[in-house]
Amino acid sequence: MTLKIGVIGTGAIGQDHARRITQSLSGATVVAVTDIHPQQAQEVVQKLGLNATVYANGHDLIAAADVEAVLVTSWGPTHEEFVLAAIARGKPVFCEKPLAVTAEGCMRIVQAEVEHGKRLVQVGFMRPYDKGYRALKNVIDSDQIGAPLIVHCAHRNPSVGDGYTTDMAITDTVIHEIDVLRWLLDDDYASVQVVYPKKTRNASSHLADPQIILMETAKGVRIDVEVFVNCQYGYDIQCEVVGETGIARLPEPSAVPMRSQARNSVAILTDWKQRFIDAYDVELQGFIDAVRQGEVGGPSAWDGYAAAVTADACVLAQKTGDIVPVRMAPRPAFYGR
Amino acid sequence: MTLKIGVIGTGAIGQDHARRITQSLSGATVVAVTDIHPQQAQEVVQKLGLNATVYANGHDLIAAADVEAVLVTSWGPTHEEFVLAAIARGKPVFCEKPLAVTAEGCMRIVQAEVEHGKRLVQVGFMRPYDKGYRALKNVIDSDQIGAPLIVHCAHRNPSVGDGYTTDMAITDTVIHEIDVLRWLLDDDYASVQVVYPKKTRNASSHLADPQIILMETAKGVRIDVEVFVNCQYGYDIQCEVVGETGIARLPEPSAVPMRSQARNSVAILTDWKQRFIDAYDVELQGFIDAVRQGEVGGPSAWDGYAAAVTADACVLAQKTGDIVPVRMAPRPAFYGR
Amino acid sequence: MTLKIGVIGTGAIGQDHARRITQSLSGATVVAVTDIHPQQAQEVVQKLGLNATVYANGHDLIAAADVEAVLVTSWGPTHEEFVLAAIARGKPVFCEKPLAVTAEGCMRIVQAEVEHGKRLVQVGFMRPYDKGYRALKNVIDSDQIGAPLIVHCAHRNPSVGDGYTTDMAITDTVIHEIDVLRWLLDDDYASVQVVYPKKTRNASSHLADPQIILMETAKGVRIDVEVFVNCQYGYDIQCEVVGETGIARLPEPSAVPMRSQARNSVAILTDWKQRFIDAYDVELQGFIDAVRQGEVGGPSAWDGYAAAVTADACVLAQKTGDIVPVRMAPRPAFYGR
Amino acid sequence: MTLKIGVIGTGAIGQDHARRITQSLSGATVVAVTDIHPQQAQEVVQKLGLNATVYANGHDLIAAADVEAVLVTSWGPTHEEFVLAAIARGKPVFCEKPLAVTAEGCMRIVQAEVEHGKRLVQVGFMRPYDKGYRALKNVIDSDQIGAPLIVHCAHRNPSVGDGYTTDMAITDTVIHEIDVLRWLLDDDYASVQVVYPKKTRNASSHLADPQIILMETAKGVRIDVEVFVNCQYGYDIQCEVVGETGIARLPEPSAVPMRSQARNSVAILTDWKQRFIDAYDVELQGFIDAVRQGEVGGPSAWDGYAAAVTADACVLAQKTGDIVPVRMAPRPAFYGR
Repeated sequence: MTLKIGVIGTGAIGQDHARRITQSLSGATVVAVTDIHPQQAQEVVQKLGLNATVYANGHDLIAAADVEAVLVTSWGPTHEEFVLAAIARGKPVFCEKPLAVTAEGCMRIVQAEVEHGKRLVQVGFMRPYDKGYRALKNVIDSDQIGAPLIVHCAHRNPSVGDGYTTDMAITDTVIHEIDVLRWLLDDDYASVQVVYPKKTRNASSHLADPQIILMETAKGVRIDVEVFVNCQYGYDIQCEVVGETGIARLPEPSAVPMRSQARNSVAILTDWKQRFIDAYDVELQGFIDAVRQGEVGGPSAWDGYAAAVTADACVLAQKTGDIVPVRMAPRPAFYGR
Repeated sequence: MTLKIGVIGTGAIGQDHARRITQSLSGATVVAVTDIHPQQAQEVVQKLGLNATVYANGHDLIAAADVEAVLVTSWGPTHEEFVLAAIARGKPVFCEKPLAVTAEGCMRIVQAEVEHGKRLVQVGFMRPYDKGYRALKNVIDSDQIGAPLIVHCAHRNPSVGDGYTTDMAITDTVIHEIDVLRWLLDDDYASVQVVYPKKTRNASSHLADPQIILMETAKGVRIDVEVFVNCQYGYDIQCEVVGETGIARLPEPSAVPMRSQARNSVAILTDWKQRFIDAYDVELQGFIDAVRQGEVGGPSAWDGYAAAVTADACVLAQKTGDIVPVRMAPRPAFYGR
Repeated sequence: MTLKIGVIGTGAIGQDHARRITQSLSGATVVAVTDIHPQQAQEVVQKLGLNATVYANGHDLIAAADVEAVLVTSWGPTHEEFVLAAIARGKPVFCEKPLAVTAEGCMRIVQAEVEHGKRLVQVGFMRPYDKGYRALKNVIDSDQIGAPLIVHCAHRNPSVGDGYTTDMAITDTVIHEIDVLRWLLDDDYASVQVVYPKKTRNASSHLADPQIILMETAKGVRIDVEVFVNCQYGYDIQCEVVGETGIARLPEPSAVPMRSQARNSVAILTDWKQRFIDAYDVELQGFIDAVRQGEVGGPSAWDGYAAAVTADACVLAQKTGDIVPVRMAPRPAFYGR
Repeated sequence: MTLKIGVIGTGAIGQDHARRITQSLSGATVVAVTDIHPQQAQEVVQKLGLNATVYANGHDLIAAADVEAVLVTSWGPTHEEFVLAAIARGKPVFCEKPLAVTAEGCMRIVQAEVEHGKRLVQVGFMRPYDKGYRALKNVIDSDQIGAPLIVHCAHRNPSVGDGYTTDMAITDTVIHEIDVLRWLLDDDYASVQVVYPKKTRNASSHLADPQIILMETAKGVRIDVEVFVNCQYGYDIQCEVVGETGIARLPEPSAVPMRSQARNSVAILTDWKQRFIDAYDVELQGFIDAVRQGEVGGPSAWDGYAAAVTADACVLAQKTGDIVPVRMAPRPAFYGR
């Protein structure tokens, strides 16, 4: 049976997911949409040729009888409310980042899901669905480099707008490393520290750029993440895992090797949207397939909570310069390990 | 509307395409299957959970009212017959390699399609759908290396069975380069030559391995293709285009860079089925999308004919050691350029 | 005129330099040797076919009328004494690491040289003579990556003996990065910190391995050096400089790219002696050429002092876990900048 | 004892070798020079500060009592005469390419040397002294890729002057591959063929560029050498050896990996003089060391003859388009194998 999905929020990412379900993925159809701008929701229905009802708001959409699963792609501060409403109805829900704008909000979702007794929530962290990260995890898990001891990462953007603030290096940028490294290492964070290198002249006056985030995990693995959002040269994600017997790196995006003008080179992406574009397909197909089989997998509400707590600690570390402990609530048995 | 597809031949590739349509791709469904072993067709229906009728033979399937498009994945010698039958019914048909087992057979299909007046046939050459070849073609077409002058290729398999004969180096192996290079260069072949290097001790007694196929195109581009089907180390496809101002290579498959045991290395594939696995999805989704919009694109019957004529010339060149001209019939205007 | 050199200490490195002067380099000859084991000095004379006098001790050798320049390659704790003696005689002296075993000892040499009024001392830091580091420095100095902001380094050995202690990670290993990065960045250190990742099971019980040394320079550049002396896989020196507009890496040693056994790979060195072997030739030829032209260049006594002060701060940081300031005496104008 | 060398011809390469002997290498000194322009020979003596006599001609220089070994770096057509004169005097002689301008001239030298009864001649083929080729040969000889079956080569220059003619692609360019591949494979050539790809618009009207030289060896190895002397992008030497179990490539020159302006790249050389610059030092030091030990090694007069015969066959193949056999005289036992 084809899965009937309702989409809350038809902005860029909402449209993109609706298009994906309709034109690329298998086994689902969009039957309902809503947006804070109803006219825009209507336009998306027409543009994509959807056979979907436009609802006045997210709650009506969640309540609709034919909506079997919900995508929350609305403005961040509304996520918590809609995810809780979907849980209340017992409907599977895929929620884009962030799960909630505070760690407390994430915890309320965790508690609601635990009370429901079964997983309903998948958070839209897409990197664990990237082929490169999966191949890297496979190398680690098959013991090809021994136990991980250190991880060196970089997250570089060519440039950011003036509205990008120092704390967004954590909440918008490193948040992806925070999530994917927990998954990659199957570990939790113990403490974090932030140091500030010499500032690039290409950053706006109010922005500290680059930054280095130092993290220690519960197992003792040391992670350094260079965040450099005005690096000029490209969008570049690096991840190197140093193990007891060898080292493995995240593969670079495939590109045509060229010899030209006295350089042997490959192109580096400049648009972040291209970097994990295939992972979005895999991620959402994974949600659809899982729901159709009566279960939800992937990044959980607990993972969303863990990311939020860690990000809070990093922002505090940015301000104090201290080594800040990461204190999480006990993990409900519900989320296994 | 979902496209209703009938599959003729439920062997390995037929099953694989049926699974693809059902579980991965968007916009099509398998409504009919047939196989020379009816029991096997029935089992595939059950295994994949298809809602499909099992027909006694390909002609009945093609004639079925609800079959809107046909996939021919049966034994090679039957391809021509089923493709001609589909054309006779005016139904779009996707035919796996070879289009027909002789150049004459291919020409009969070309003529039938020309008489029909509209493209109905797509041949299952998947390499033009590979991201790497597409990126390489984009580099060439955007004039980043100037006009192509030379192409150096290699097609290497770890090993082949005893049934693999010297001419199969052309008809089973280099046939892929023959097709993809015509597309890559937007050119035709003028002549071919085959030279035999020292034979590897790892080939069976009757097999010449490796071989080098030398080709010249109508535009004067020189191509060398090393075919080495017992190279031991892996399945490896190389393509380097030398242009007037620079050089571009086919990207290698993505792999995790590792430092271990005194080597800095990446894995090389050993299973050919993994090499272009993503391309099959793109290829078949392309067929589905095109048919739903009332047209057929991709490798044409004419491309199938050109590949057959060129392969014949190569097999002759294998036997004679001569430089053999490639003589094609005039291209019907129907197939444009 | 051929430069007449006396060698104090005919152990491994002393012999190696004597062989180098005699068989590979141009413009110098060994006329005098001494060793704490006179018999061994005699044997080296015979083995290398030197036309050299064996002296009873370093002071007699330095005093010998025909000795025009001195190589100090004896046991570390004797270096200061012999370098000071050479300065007292106004003779150029090339001293292997360390210049002296304490920062105070280095400062005494600095003061003696300043009083002498002219440079006489070259310290045996060889990395600034390595082609790779030189090429990297040239990229930085020609502004190809903008101002340096961050440097990521690794210094990895396959394994170390049981006698290797935690502080030797600084004094024997990172000491090379301490020297070469000051030269590469043309900068001084402001503070250092050491963090301990999870320990590898391959280190001896008393050794913390790996370690990460974090350094900040006077200009604000942030440096992280991973030291991992039981990494198993090879001897591997990494250095990546992140600049305002681009990134440059130290080239890897040249090696034959191979495709074999399902890996595309190059060899990694396992013997540290091979890594900078060419640099020793360049370094010593540089000393010879400079002395023949009446001047001494290369790493200076001040550089030796700076390395010693920084190493002391790192060792303190190892013990305390604190961010430790690097406090150097004012640089004598004598050493320019 | 320091070896006393006389240099015949003080043009670019002669000066360079004189500088090399004087400033970089060990164990030799230039005691005599001559040039067809005596004034220029005098200037070189002064510029390099040589303690050398200027002779009126090569024969006088060869006859001079204190000249123990001869370097022939004069105009090509004079080589044979001076090499024969040196052999007549029993003096070791290092002769730059070509040994003689005809295969017959080379054979006269071979015969003279054989009559002398001991090797005296080293030909200035420097590639066997290149670290990269040596490492590649070591991989082959240690059976890491099995028996060689195919060699793919490229020899590319950014551009050539108008005086460069089609046959010079053989006599000036591929001559290096002809020599180094014989040494690399320890084999001889059986036949050659030349094919002409589409001509680049960047070549002068009279020049065929690029060309592909196809060679077969006595052992059956097939070699293809792409010669492209107006490739625009750089000076690039490629050599890939396909063996029975694996593949090995010539290492690329070391360069700084950079990420900048949306490219991940390394520089390619543009000046051919930089490509094998270190090999010249090793080559000439090898000659000096060998002569001092009473023997001559390296590329022999026989190797010079073999290169000449093969080049002649290639030039004939250029003109005829035929597969041309390479017919060499029987190898004198004197030159071993």
